[in-house]
Amino acid sequence: MITRMSTLFLRTLREDPADAEVPSHKLLVRAGYVRRVGPGVYSWLPLGLAVFRRVEQVVREEMNAIGAQEILFPALLPREPYEATNRWAEYGPALFRIKDRKGADYLLGPTHEELFTLTVKGEYASYKDYPVMLYQIQTKYRDEERPRAGILRGREFVMKDSYSFDLDDDGLADSYRKHRDAYRTIFDRVGLRYVIVAATSGAMGGSASEEFLAESETGEDTYVRSTGSDYAANVEAVVTRAPEAQSVDDKPAAEVHHTPDTPTIETLVDFLNSTGERKFTAAETLKNVLVKTRQPGSDEWSLLAVAVPGDREVDFKRVEAALEPAQVELLTEADFAANPFLVKGYIGPKALQDNKVPFLVDPRIVTGTAWVTGADKPDHHVVDLVCGRDFTPDGTIEAAEVLEGDPSPDGTGTLESARGIEVGHIFQLGRKYSDTFGLDALGQDGKPKRITMGSYGVGVSRLVAAIVEQNHDRDGLVWPREVAPADVHMVMAGKDDTVRDTAERLAAELDDAGVRVILDDRASSPGVKFADAELVGVPTILVVGKGLANGVVEVKDRRSGERTEVAVDEIVDHLRAL
Amino acid sequence: MITRMSTLFLRTLREDPADAEVPSHKLLVRAGYVRRVGPGVYSWLPLGLAVFRRVEQVVREEMNAIGAQEILFPALLPREPYEATNRWAEYGPALFRIKDRKGADYLLGPTHEELFTLTVKGEYASYKDYPVMLYQIQTKYRDEERPRAGILRGREFVMKDSYSFDLDDDGLADSYRKHRDAYRTIFDRVGLRYVIVAATSGAMGGSASEEFLAESETGEDTYVRSTGSDYAANVEAVVTRAPEAQSVDDKPAAEVHHTPDTPTIETLVDFLNSTGERKFTAAETLKNVLVKTRQPGSDEWSLLAVAVPGDREVDFKRVEAALEPAQVELLTEADFAANPFLVKGYIGPKALQDNKVPFLVDPRIVTGTAWVTGADKPDHHVVDLVCGRDFTPDGTIEAAEVLEGDPSPDGTGTLESARGIEVGHIFQLGRKYSDTFGLDALGQDGKPKRITMGSYGVGVSRLVAAIVEQNHDRDGLVWPREVAPADVHMVMAGKDDTVRDTAERLAAELDDAGVRVILDDRASSPGVKFADAELVGVPTILVVGKGLANGVVEVKDRRSGERTEVAVDEIVDHLRAL
Repeated sequence: MITRMSTLFLRTLREDPADAEVPSHKLLVRAGYVRRVGPGVYSWLPLGLAVFRRVEQVVREEMNAIGAQEILFPALLPREPYEATNRWAEYGPALFRIKDRKGADYLLGPTHEELFTLTVKGEYASYKDYPVMLYQIQTKYRDEERPRAGILRGREFVMKDSYSFDLDDDGLADSYRKHRDAYRTIFDRVGLRYVIVAATSGAMGGSASEEFLAESETGEDTYVRSTGSDYAANVEAVVTRAPEAQSVDDKPAAEVHHTPDTPTIETLVDFLNSTGERKFTAAETLKNVLVKTRQPGSDEWSLLAVAVPGDREVDFKRVEAALEPAQVELLTEADFAANPFLVKGYIGPKALQDNKVPFLVDPRIVTGTAWVTGADKPDHHVVDLVCGRDFTPDGTIEAAEVLEGDPSPDGTGTLESARGIEVGHIFQLGRKYSDTFGLDALGQDGKPKRITMGSYGVGVSRLVAAIVEQNHDRDGLVWPREVAPADVHMVMAGKDDTVRDTAERLAAELDDAGVRVILDDRASSPGVKFADAELVGVPTILVVGKGLANGVVEVKDRRSGERTEVAVDEIVDHLRAL
Repeated sequence: MITRMSTLFLRTLREDPADAEVPSHKLLVRAGYVRRVGPGVYSWLPLGLAVFRRVEQVVREEMNAIGAQEILFPALLPREPYEATNRWAEYGPALFRIKDRKGADYLLGPTHEELFTLTVKGEYASYKDYPVMLYQIQTKYRDEERPRAGILRGREFVMKDSYSFDLDDDGLADSYRKHRDAYRTIFDRVGLRYVIVAATSGAMGGSASEEFLAESETGEDTYVRSTGSDYAANVEAVVTRAPEAQSVDDKPAAEVHHTPDTPTIETLVDFLNSTGERKFTAAETLKNVLVKTRQPGSDEWSLLAVAVPGDREVDFKRVEAALEPAQVELLTEADFAANPFLVKGYIGPKALQDNKVPFLVDPRIVTGTAWVTGADKPDHHVVDLVCGRDFTPDGTIEAAEVLEGDPSPDGTGTLESARGIEVGHIFQLGRKYSDTFGLDALGQDGKPKRITMGSYGVGVSRLVAAIVEQNHDRDGLVWPREVAPADVHMVMAGKDDTVRDTAERLAAELDDAGVRVILDDRASSPGVKFADAELVGVPTILVVGKGLANGVVEVKDRRSGERTEVAVDEIVDHLRAL
């Protein structure tokens, strides 16, 4: 089918939309691919839908290639399964909740773990049925607090979500690997530059998890990568390399100092260094930060202390990720008042442990390390408090901020920060959902075997935007061929009959040869047509115009800008070869 | 791709689901095509999704063939456009309404007239831009009071909805005709028996409108058709053939009779026939029925009188359709008490017209016809009250029930009743939406021209069920080839290596030849495999088994049951020819 600009439902815009900040948002609107309907809610116009369908088809083909089977769930889902997994509550205001005419509770599905688990349970019973991988390409809903950047972070969007069901951990690892490979193929095929980062689990519980991030300065996701290796991870997932434990025997005894007016690390270090001969750095101090946590479904808050070296801040997002699915908050003044053993600015391990507050420490705080920390009374600190001798942590926690220049967890290079757009996520869920719904297979030995699951997502609509973030220039979109809305954008440059007839004939021949053509047959000026061709971003621009006098047409490569003259007789073969 | 029963996510059921009443619901569940998630909310399993996608593709191809352009709107829509057209209120409890985290009102789109109108207004400005036809294949939501019959009447379902935008009525008529032709092609291609019936407008306002009904005894839509012609119509749309008006001059004078204890037509006729020589029939009496109506957006109810010949009941659905978009209710006792001129059982035209109650009559009540009717006091009726002499109606209304045997409105044959499933609806909206949103094109004369619209829907998911209602037998589904989930269902009947090797080889050859194969490679007994093949309903069943000893395989036509033996060497060509 030839797409004719004269009738195509497309009007390009000269100006960027006022609400657009990132290139994909600006260009997809300007080139007439998408239109805003409401905050985070967009419609796809013909060219946009064409690209979207191409991307969708790549995802579908690669899912089928690993033996995953496509099914389709509704978006409107009853509350009960999400109540059973507690996600009805956990999702908070990000879940669109809805009541039907009878007052029954429904939600618009954000992901479908519950439904897939129940469906497999409904069909399968025996170990012989497994393994199975199922997927859908489906519209999802999340009531984002700040929908932004057009289709990059929408409230209605399309995801491919798949789920694997295996009898054992080896099977899960295999399904996970298959998805990982399929995702690499998908992102390679659509021409994306991406990194695979170790990730935390999000609200879904479970163990191994990686994210596919499209490299992009406009991305919302910050990650760190090693300067010396392939290592990349979400900041939340960075694992601190712990030093070796040391002997506690040769350490000086702990000593309480009067340190007037030193409620901060900086004032403390300054005071110590100005009053004694021994010099301290902030890295030798221990900062004890109090939070309160609440388990899902519980009403009760508990205190928790987190200790990090004083030269680093506590990264609250890392704390949240480490303590998930518990809810975490900072203490209020009322909390301090209710716990008078907490002496603000001077909190030390002793009072915490005496008062049974769980005490988790940064992995750098190993046995034998000595610290300057609070002495649990105003204006006093203790020096040479030795871990494993003077205090014993209840465990470690990844709570300290990650800094550029930190050693890479894999031992090679140091960490640097980068930004990306999350386009895929693979995740070993384990038995969280099969436990909730009792998904068992009857084993060969006649005993029930609990199924283990993986969950895998590709943001299909977001992927369109991510591709644009990496493939555009100041003139417009520059589509990778695999996802382009057409193969050739033919410009009729001239109004005489020879131009028109030749263009029409070539378009028909290309169409017959399976080449997808946009034909600019409008009455507009060549300048308008050229500008629109650049903006629309089809990989090859074909100009039928003055050259005809010499028997040639001009082929322009949209990405490189390179122009070639090709004989009219050879142009169909030439373009088919691309 | 070969679909293997050994790994296909499919478990057939021997029993009908307890909640299923109609064949499509029973069989689509039993054959593992769909599963219930909640009331009116279903998931598509692999084979169901395959059929659904085939049907969707037929619809898409025929829409593209008439030059309609595909776009895609969100389902989550802001309230404002639907407020502007009053549909936010008019839809009543059938609309899923939703509040986002900021308290803003949204709805789940039941149809998208508002959005299409606004989108065209956003892109197009000049008469040169028109006409345009746009469509989408998209998930829709209606909170049905009684979702039923599986995917036949769901609350989440997929529709193809398209909209035409024209400069004038001729253009609209052309767009309407194109859609009508495309719909005929669509329903022909998917093998549906259907009728096109004249329809009322539903909640959408406008003029010409036809429905495509799949003929089915299980259908919810009742319609009438002529025994002597192609005429078919919804009962609400049947137009009564009015008799010729007569002279009033030669009619006897109206006369009030004391008719004690005759509050019903039957008692009245009996009384008159038992007390006088002149004999009356119910058809000569005039029944005056009072309703109250309220215009959309108004709080005020008004009285309205509807008169029909006494041998017919008032059909309330026809009254509602005739008065749409007004709301209609019967009077309460309180209403009668508040209007003492209404003498129940004895209401006549005089009191109604004296009290300025609008008085609409059945089209059979023409000038010169004489009637027995109420005399506006208890136990009294008037005889020979002549229309056009003794009373003058304010207009006509299609309020009387349509009866089998009534003359067909087209003058040929009589009407009989039938049932069908609405699978398509085409509708000349006119300027209702373009008026609301001010959708104008700048005309050649420099003046704005109001655009006129058509709206056209195909129930894509419902169509799958309608096809099943017409294509099944006691053994299971019987798919028309165009929409079948596969072309050939190959049964390995036997466990020896020859059977397996031959089946595998043939499956591979068929796959190479572009024939879509389901291969039953399970360890199950031939009986189980045959039963599943019948239930699943692929058009051709190929049995690879004992016949191999003689170099043949068996081909069974699922619909006719006819069996043929074909040489192994020839089977691929044989099947490709189907």
